[in-house]
Amino acid sequence: MRTVDVQLGERSYPIYIGEDLLQQAGNYLDNHHISKQSPVLIVTDEHVADPYLNIVEQSLTASGFTVVTAIVGAGEQSKSMSVFEEVMTKAIQGGLDRKSTVIALGGGVVGDLAGFVAGSYMRGIRFIQMPTSVLAHDSSVGGKVAINHRLAKNMIGVFHQPEFVLYDLTTLQTLPKREINAGLAEMVKHGLIWDKEFAYWCLEHAEELKSVDMTVMGYGLEKGCSIKAIVVSRDERENDLRAILNLGHTIGHAIEAVAGYGEIIHGEAISIGMVGSALIGEQLGGEPGLVDTTRRMLTALGLPTVLPERLDTDRIMEAMMHDKKFQEGSMTFIVPKSIGVVEINHNVDYDLVRRVVEQLKEEV
Amino acid sequence: MRTVDVQLGERSYPIYIGEDLLQQAGNYLDNHHISKQSPVLIVTDEHVADPYLNIVEQSLTASGFTVVTAIVGAGEQSKSMSVFEEVMTKAIQGGLDRKSTVIALGGGVVGDLAGFVAGSYMRGIRFIQMPTSVLAHDSSVGGKVAINHRLAKNMIGVFHQPEFVLYDLTTLQTLPKREINAGLAEMVKHGLIWDKEFAYWCLEHAEELKSVDMTVMGYGLEKGCSIKAIVVSRDERENDLRAILNLGHTIGHAIEAVAGYGEIIHGEAISIGMVGSALIGEQLGGEPGLVDTTRRMLTALGLPTVLPERLDTDRIMEAMMHDKKFQEGSMTFIVPKSIGVVEINHNVDYDLVRRVVEQLKEEV
Repeated sequence: MRTVDVQLGERSYPIYIGEDLLQQAGNYLDNHHISKQSPVLIVTDEHVADPYLNIVEQSLTASGFTVVTAIVGAGEQSKSMSVFEEVMTKAIQGGLDRKSTVIALGGGVVGDLAGFVAGSYMRGIRFIQMPTSVLAHDSSVGGKVAINHRLAKNMIGVFHQPEFVLYDLTTLQTLPKREINAGLAEMVKHGLIWDKEFAYWCLEHAEELKSVDMTVMGYGLEKGCSIKAIVVSRDERENDLRAILNLGHTIGHAIEAVAGYGEIIHGEAISIGMVGSALIGEQLGGEPGLVDTTRRMLTALGLPTVLPERLDTDRIMEAMMHDKKFQEGSMTFIVPKSIGVVEINHNVDYDLVRRVVEQLKEEV
Repeated sequence: MRTVDVQLGERSYPIYIGEDLLQQAGNYLDNHHISKQSPVLIVTDEHVADPYLNIVEQSLTASGFTVVTAIVGAGEQSKSMSVFEEVMTKAIQGGLDRKSTVIALGGGVVGDLAGFVAGSYMRGIRFIQMPTSVLAHDSSVGGKVAINHRLAKNMIGVFHQPEFVLYDLTTLQTLPKREINAGLAEMVKHGLIWDKEFAYWCLEHAEELKSVDMTVMGYGLEKGCSIKAIVVSRDERENDLRAILNLGHTIGHAIEAVAGYGEIIHGEAISIGMVGSALIGEQLGGEPGLVDTTRRMLTALGLPTVLPERLDTDRIMEAMMHDKKFQEGSMTFIVPKSIGVVEINHNVDYDLVRRVVEQLKEEV
């Protein structure tokens, strides 16, 4: 069992990473003094529910907890206002009170939705994350929770830190290959922004990571969570430093939006976005070979690094202008200097970005 | 001009109380370094909009701010999920970003709605309150903001403190008498829970308060806000002490629910509720004459102190059991010991409460 401590003063919490942890969920709640007098709400999706909901529910019931469940549809559409309201209804009807706890059992969508329910039910109750995807190692650190407005993603939310995160590696073994690889994009991103050695470790262990070798995956998630935890603990509410976690996300979000959500999934889109950032970095005087090395790492992890020709450059530029990271009109990018070192550049030239989007379409 | 400082560490803020302050709104935003690069959203209701929206909008525009407005229907029904979503739409379409500010111009409903918009838009942006009712002196201190779920009031919300509160007394002069008196119920409540002298001051100045004498009302609101600020600063997230602010609210909320919202308005319901609390207090060994003095104060302020016979006692008891202040099955009441002194009692006997509800129906 590995433990990562996220240091946030009185909101600090541990991330437990190991095998077969869901069976012991009740013990973990006990150790964290979760109230047994008040019902616990488990939010999960239809894909995760079978078989994991039963495992968690049985463990909690055996430990004496009263459990209420809310099963939502799988996928981004569950981060809507209407699904949010439905989960709130379950919470009220289940008798949740101010001492109750909400558990997110699932990937990033469930974590975001359940986290916002916990953050706003009776003005905020306790929250526990039980991630079941590789990608969720990223979203389970930092307390950013949100739902979507029909006009924009993640527009309605709060910062709400969990009591603890219970990361059961066993659940990753049944994930589709495409989702595993997409999750590895965020893992290697943590190396690219902060830790050269870890970025190269991901490259060297790409095969074990893709096939979910428990020891290798455990170390990778521990390291990824640790780097994010350091960044978040220095800047919880994203005043400055935390923005480096957005490496590849400005171009990536635009790719997702223009391709149509789900066509190119999040990890794939930011993979291409990170190559774009490397191209910007190299043209702004970064280390020679930056683009090649970045591409090599992402390709090894089974990720795309070329932008499909059919995605119109003007539409991608337009989608970027709507991104909430464009503050007060200027274009801000996280720009790599070398592998493991990035800077926040608030004045990246529009034409340079446009040229880079074009370059991203060239086969290599 | 009077100023009350709400001490909450780095979330501290001032309340400015005075005449004709809305005309100077732009200066106040300037003094608080509100960004002019990002749009400001004013949320108000159809009754307050004419004439106050224009006044505020002109002052802000003259100071160089870009203003977006959202006018909602007057009344509790605007604290719904659908109105919340509409205001969010205005915010997105108006181009609000993370440096933007939301202004609540209106009474408690607008403050709650706009506050939750500010607290959750892009995970929280700046917030300013400009109250236009007597009742709002209460809700403008403490950062509790929320909307209603169709099954329960104030169920979805957060704690979100404003940058400052701009309380223009001039706006109170056009309020309906009934609303002024209802607001005075919360004012005298602050005396009843904390400050005997202030409670008697409200009794002695009842006529000037009811007719909105500027000097007397200014002092009353300053004092009411100050008491609430002291309580909130000692217990921001209602772990214990803050609960005393709920004096009369457990019975009061039940009366509102059973009478049908709007039939007996909030201040009237808690007026009757505070008499109920005094009855409980006297029967648990409180100061003799507690009930008579409480009734005399409330009557002087034009408030009801007798429960209408038509409201069924069983239904009131049932509504109380659903109240979120019943934690883990026990009945908690704020119980007066004497005028200005209350205690939090977690074990008030159900039968005693039922008897008191019956007694509340007796004409005096």
